[in-house]
Amino acid sequence: MRVYLDNSATTTAAPEVVAAMLPYFSDHMGNAQSVHSFGQQAKAALEASRRQVAALIGAAPTEIVFVSGGTEADNLAIRGIAKQFSERGRHIITTKIEHPAVLATAEALEAQGFFVTYLPVSREGLVHASEVRRAIRDETILVSVMHANNETGAIQPISEISQALAEAHEAGHRRIYLHTDAVQSVGKVKVDVDELAVDLLSMSAHKIHGPKGIGALYIRRGVKLGKILFGGHHERDRRPGTENIPAIVGFGVACELGRTSLLERMNRTRDLRDYLEQEVTRRITGVKRNGDPHQRVPNISNLTFDGVDGESLLIALDLKGVAVSTGSACSSGSLEPSHVLTAMGLPRDEVRGSLRFSFSQYSTREEVDYAISTLAEIIARLREMSPEGDTPGIRSALEGANSASTGASEIKL
Amino acid sequence: MRVYLDNSATTTAAPEVVAAMLPYFSDHMGNAQSVHSFGQQAKAALEASRRQVAALIGAAPTEIVFVSGGTEADNLAIRGIAKQFSERGRHIITTKIEHPAVLATAEALEAQGFFVTYLPVSREGLVHASEVRRAIRDETILVSVMHANNETGAIQPISEISQALAEAHEAGHRRIYLHTDAVQSVGKVKVDVDELAVDLLSMSAHKIHGPKGIGALYIRRGVKLGKILFGGHHERDRRPGTENIPAIVGFGVACELGRTSLLERMNRTRDLRDYLEQEVTRRITGVKRNGDPHQRVPNISNLTFDGVDGESLLIALDLKGVAVSTGSACSSGSLEPSHVLTAMGLPRDEVRGSLRFSFSQYSTREEVDYAISTLAEIIARLREMSPEGDTPGIRSALEGANSASTGASEIKL
Repeated sequence: MRVYLDNSATTTAAPEVVAAMLPYFSDHMGNAQSVHSFGQQAKAALEASRRQVAALIGAAPTEIVFVSGGTEADNLAIRGIAKQFSERGRHIITTKIEHPAVLATAEALEAQGFFVTYLPVSREGLVHASEVRRAIRDETILVSVMHANNETGAIQPISEISQALAEAHEAGHRRIYLHTDAVQSVGKVKVDVDELAVDLLSMSAHKIHGPKGIGALYIRRGVKLGKILFGGHHERDRRPGTENIPAIVGFGVACELGRTSLLERMNRTRDLRDYLEQEVTRRITGVKRNGDPHQRVPNISNLTFDGVDGESLLIALDLKGVAVSTGSACSSGSLEPSHVLTAMGLPRDEVRGSLRFSFSQYSTREEVDYAISTLAEIIARLREMSPEGDTPGIRSALEGANSASTGASEIKL
Repeated sequence: MRVYLDNSATTTAAPEVVAAMLPYFSDHMGNAQSVHSFGQQAKAALEASRRQVAALIGAAPTEIVFVSGGTEADNLAIRGIAKQFSERGRHIITTKIEHPAVLATAEALEAQGFFVTYLPVSREGLVHASEVRRAIRDETILVSVMHANNETGAIQPISEISQALAEAHEAGHRRIYLHTDAVQSVGKVKVDVDELAVDLLSMSAHKIHGPKGIGALYIRRGVKLGKILFGGHHERDRRPGTENIPAIVGFGVACELGRTSLLERMNRTRDLRDYLEQEVTRRITGVKRNGDPHQRVPNISNLTFDGVDGESLLIALDLKGVAVSTGSACSSGSLEPSHVLTAMGLPRDEVRGSLRFSFSQYSTREEVDYAISTLAEIIARLREMSPEGDTPGIRSALEGANSASTGASEIKL
């Protein structure tokens, strides 16, 4: 049995998505910039998809710019604002738990003379709007805070942050732009750009059963951005390069499906996730849940297994056909422990003992059952192999103790 | 009948390409950065494709970096070198006939304090290596000259240019890097990075029956580049973002097909193109061919029809189902006349009277016959509508005169 519980890394494309894409590889393969009918057909598909993507987040179609994925969207948002407003100020506020696409971009700007504040998070993995408020300086031009964290699923208080920025503006501060990386929340929970009151929002298709290689940046009407790629005048002169029509069509359908079946998907994944958390903690000792228990997307569970090395666990699970993750796929090549769990204050051995389980609407109860029993079996074996008391984690697991110091949400053991 | 003769704008994906991609949307949908088997499967596909792409241009697989397309490849090459070596010098040499992805990138660098020399071309649309040699300054760090021009198909003397750079190096100049945008030559003629002796070479999948949204930059071993996108450590830390595995797999297959059937494709498209040129000039008066008649890719024909407006002709042809182009698709939205034909010295009315016909191995004789007779019919009608002598173009057409002043290669009228 092969069980894929790593849907925060990437998802399978929905059959409807693939079916919609297919004609655009061959029969309707025009370049959307071409004047002739092949081109116009492509252009029509492009604009139809733009409407579908916009509808999912409550935006206007003209506010959507297609890019090659979430990483490019984050780069365009942050560097676009930095470039456009560098004369006004060179201070940016972000958090310690952002995706590498945001963190590495912020670091690149630091190398260019920008100043970046990396906000801490609570033990539940949440940024507080008050921290944003405190970090604002005269030179602040941009705040970039992710919507849902990719490792814990914790949903950040974006509306409160935008409120804080609005208050600063009322108090005389020049406009501070707000960007959110919503790659892990779009299609998982309701996302509305006006409710969140963001200026810029990053999306990725392959996290919501669309194809890889396509994403979008929502740019609020009137917001001006510097360019990060140069070439033709595609996407209203905001992103050059031949439009990736098949992928854009697939993205549109994925957004349409996400919009029309959002509640159903939320219920389904939440049920499976809650069931996994309940069964795992019932059958395995020394398990803690990471991230805010309430403010979170329904499809992610991040668990710490005391006295167990997450990497070994992941590999053992994989040998039994169960795919999970120790953190974000984007940094899994590295041996660095999760920067997110570290920022939440988990001690190093607990960071190393953590796994992320992420569900999709295609996940089944049978799969989850298999994952749970495989997990229980492997953990028992790993703990047997490791001499008792060898690590503090194991001792506390056997004692049923909770490490209150970590701030991880406790769940019944 | 629908006849697509705009294969330089984009091509249909080969059936083999689409078939190869399909499993990677669903069954084999892993993120190549994931440690588990889904991820490893994706990673294996990624590396297999890298070998196929490398093989087409005589490169080593480690010299290939996948990007979102030709535009990003050009941006990475040029800005990557500019960033890496800006301390050494800030002079770049390119040409007046480059793709907008190169020209706009060069202009963006000028805005940042770089100096760019835009070399002229001959009446046949060729850059001369001697011009490159003359343009070299102490501060020169990069030469970027396209391999085949996208409007005329003219093949630039890249080996001679690299020879000129090698001579400058021998004479004591610090290394000058050589980039070529080979988007229109790869898969059309033999392209070998060692024969060309380039450091950087841009490729795009959708011009060679691969999918849109994927391209590659060849980076010669040892060449260091600054980054243009920031995020995870994908592609040996050269291009962040989840790898677009289905598209990469499709690109690999397209390269494999391009490599194994190159001669067959060259012969097929050359036969069709030569047939079109021969028949068009036999049946229609006042036709001139643009671009070097010998140094050119076999699949492009650029023709000027005296006394006819190309845009009107394109639209009339489209209404009859024949898709061609007045220039590059990437600038067709604009009303600017072709910068390529202008740089070749064609007078404005001839630039406006020019069309590009571009073929693929899927083009048929029947389609070309239909295109020729439709073209003859429409041109006759357009010329009837326009009063005789109204434009110099028409008069010269009726007189059978050739405008020697334009430098266009004459073909028998």
